[in-house]
Amino acid sequence: MDDNSPPAATTTGFQPVLDLIDQSMDASLQRLFAFLRIPSISTDPAYATQCHAAANWLISDLMSMGFNTELVETKGHPIVTAHLESANPDARTLLFYGHYDVQPVDPLDLWTADPFDPRLNTLENGKKVICARGAADDKGQLMTFVEACRAMLQVQGGLPAHIRICIEGEEESGSGNLPLFIKEHAAALQADIALVCDTGMWDGDTPAVTTSLRGLLYEEIIIRCADRDLHSGLYGGAARNPIHVLSAIIASLHDADGRIMVPDFYAGVSEPSASVLDGWRKLDLNETNFLGPIGLRRSAGETGRMLIEQVQSRPTCDVNGIVGGYTGVGAKTVIPAQASAKISFRLVGEQDPDPIRENFRAFVQSQVPDDCSVEFVSHGGSKPFHVPTDRPELERAVAALKDEWRVTPAVIGSGGSIPVVGEFKRALGLDSLLIGFGLDDDRIHSPNEKYDLKSFHKGIRSWARVLAALG
Amino acid sequence: MDDNSPPAATTTGFQPVLDLIDQSMDASLQRLFAFLRIPSISTDPAYATQCHAAANWLISDLMSMGFNTELVETKGHPIVTAHLESANPDARTLLFYGHYDVQPVDPLDLWTADPFDPRLNTLENGKKVICARGAADDKGQLMTFVEACRAMLQVQGGLPAHIRICIEGEEESGSGNLPLFIKEHAAALQADIALVCDTGMWDGDTPAVTTSLRGLLYEEIIIRCADRDLHSGLYGGAARNPIHVLSAIIASLHDADGRIMVPDFYAGVSEPSASVLDGWRKLDLNETNFLGPIGLRRSAGETGRMLIEQVQSRPTCDVNGIVGGYTGVGAKTVIPAQASAKISFRLVGEQDPDPIRENFRAFVQSQVPDDCSVEFVSHGGSKPFHVPTDRPELERAVAALKDEWRVTPAVIGSGGSIPVVGEFKRALGLDSLLIGFGLDDDRIHSPNEKYDLKSFHKGIRSWARVLAALG
Repeated sequence: MDDNSPPAATTTGFQPVLDLIDQSMDASLQRLFAFLRIPSISTDPAYATQCHAAANWLISDLMSMGFNTELVETKGHPIVTAHLESANPDARTLLFYGHYDVQPVDPLDLWTADPFDPRLNTLENGKKVICARGAADDKGQLMTFVEACRAMLQVQGGLPAHIRICIEGEEESGSGNLPLFIKEHAAALQADIALVCDTGMWDGDTPAVTTSLRGLLYEEIIIRCADRDLHSGLYGGAARNPIHVLSAIIASLHDADGRIMVPDFYAGVSEPSASVLDGWRKLDLNETNFLGPIGLRRSAGETGRMLIEQVQSRPTCDVNGIVGGYTGVGAKTVIPAQASAKISFRLVGEQDPDPIRENFRAFVQSQVPDDCSVEFVSHGGSKPFHVPTDRPELERAVAALKDEWRVTPAVIGSGGSIPVVGEFKRALGLDSLLIGFGLDDDRIHSPNEKYDLKSFHKGIRSWARVLAALG
Repeated sequence: MDDNSPPAATTTGFQPVLDLIDQSMDASLQRLFAFLRIPSISTDPAYATQCHAAANWLISDLMSMGFNTELVETKGHPIVTAHLESANPDARTLLFYGHYDVQPVDPLDLWTADPFDPRLNTLENGKKVICARGAADDKGQLMTFVEACRAMLQVQGGLPAHIRICIEGEEESGSGNLPLFIKEHAAALQADIALVCDTGMWDGDTPAVTTSLRGLLYEEIIIRCADRDLHSGLYGGAARNPIHVLSAIIASLHDADGRIMVPDFYAGVSEPSASVLDGWRKLDLNETNFLGPIGLRRSAGETGRMLIEQVQSRPTCDVNGIVGGYTGVGAKTVIPAQASAKISFRLVGEQDPDPIRENFRAFVQSQVPDDCSVEFVSHGGSKPFHVPTDRPELERAVAALKDEWRVTPAVIGSGGSIPVVGEFKRALGLDSLLIGFGLDDDRIHSPNEKYDLKSFHKGIRSWARVLAALG
């Protein structure tokens, strides 16, 4: 594609929809703010009521647009489903996926404002951003699709495709109840292709379609030694300290070159082709432009790998949390009875989370003294996934995005994991088109999460164009 | 000494004091319970008011007995001082030390009852125990001395020695304001010997006089990497993870033989004499009888050392707390911006906390990548201390304890640290006699702290006998 090519045919006569989107931005923002005010943290059972509230908010909004909706209860948080047929019976069927749940907000003291009191801030560079937990991941993103549908319905009185919507509430906690839901609702979810809005742009000016995702294995380990907390002055020097045991295990996960030491971990990892590597080299992702903005200067990844390999094509292991003993203010001379860590692996290629889980657990168990114990808690696993790059919908979506952004979109892999994409393929044989408008500096999963107003606004316009192109 | 020798002369005609102690146990317990109800946690600034309340409770109680009292304010929590002269001007002057502050209570969910709602429980073996935070450390212990004075004053109308009392409120948080207090009140604190009740018995039937204490160095380290929490799906594989850095540092603190790897750490550590080692061998402290009761089977200490060496004559290093990243329920795929650990060292012989602190910090700093940082927070340091074993007071106290317990007391070293003992010697030239009635299973610094009713009761009787013997 050529940046100077004329707008794609799909957008011809489409201006009134885009105009209405532009004129409705205030109302669109007010709806998003109402949605963001609901603290739908899925991983903490204390927020179950709020997760229901977020699901019901979506049901109401989709009903008001004319969708047929259903709140499907699960063993966890409910799933929102909706559908609306196109007036053209021969139109394509598109299944849109998003998630209404959000990440926890701790450490709360690092937020500059209440994470559930959304606001529009203007940064020093003049950029306007929507600040709240979930602004980008995924409430802001999923509303770009909903608002695009609303504008098309208002202007055109109908949609160019049969639309099915599936918004889950457990994406941030492993999507544990999604597979059963998909299995039980397979008929209602049948579509030509799935659309997912939970990924990012290449940069603030360049949209992206994501065609590969890393898998995820998430394990928690709890090391227990003595049957009670001990006074280090009485037992120190003799009693096993579970923090020491845990630290040694963590230190053993990587070798000096950053390679992961779990046996057989790299089975199924393949090398990118020479042409892919060559393309990546030209993107010039380096320590300065990738790590500089987050306050680092040096990659901690595998030696001998380009930075883009480290974050896209190589599997990784990170400890996401650790706790043991006294963590309050001041000092306490305790040898704790237990210490625990949450550890996740990003998987690529043909890596399979099940054998890796077994090997990881054996690897940990072998380092636990025989009068101590380890408990393993699984927080889910998903295989890596590759979206086919030869579907015509991909080409049409790329053209529609180019019409909106006036620059050739990037077709990229993503380091993140979106379990539903693999599940759609496995259970429904359904391919997915991953289009999102997040940016690397959105602080998703961190304090002060934001979503650029430009991402929200042009994201809505982009979806309207993509829907028209695919319809 | 011989277990069949007649009672020491000091106890002749002393029976009415002991009888009153026995008859007053209910009232003594009620006073202790009132004291235990005050949550005087010194290390947490949120409990400053309660620390004041505990100090004032002591002031009232000592005033009611006829002591001259003063609440001395410091930059931290106040120090309680009191004095009462003997009718015999030639009597010895004894300075009693204790502390009214207690350890934090977390993890609170492991307590079977409110830690500040003291109660008398009967264990399965019929043993009665006082359960509360501070029951043993040190409120119960210090009240054994106060109750002994009360009984002697009631029966005899006076005390056999000039008594000075100094009860501080920051022992559990490093005694930071005690040195200045001792310096400024040196004249008022002059005495022939200091008495400290903050140590343990050899076992439930055998009292002990402690003649050596390990020193303490307590450091907190905070590792910072990126300037914000990161999404591990976007940055994992490239961004430095502070939990990994911290775990590697902790894993490097000991070698495979359990020796501490901080450079020059063992400077000043000497070997016990052959006769001391021989005596220790006869005590038969082993993995079964020492570690078995806390659910362990195997010592984690230095290879090639007897267990009693590991906990008494060898320096140690324990991580007392660690925290970083997401520690709530469920999963969060975050690479945290920081991780921290609280690390303490028990020191022996001539080890000096100051150079060890410097060497430890350099050792840690050398392992921190140059685009990351480490912050050090000091939680105090004290030198190891040895009480002279040739003072006549030691022999008299041992004889008095033998009268009460009908078994030869053990003269031992302690793994714990009591900073005041070194300070008394340095600032006042004052030797200390360390007599306490705690037991290894008292769970001090842990959930469900307890103090045996027998320790409290016979502790009061013991102090009355010791006071009479030293007077």
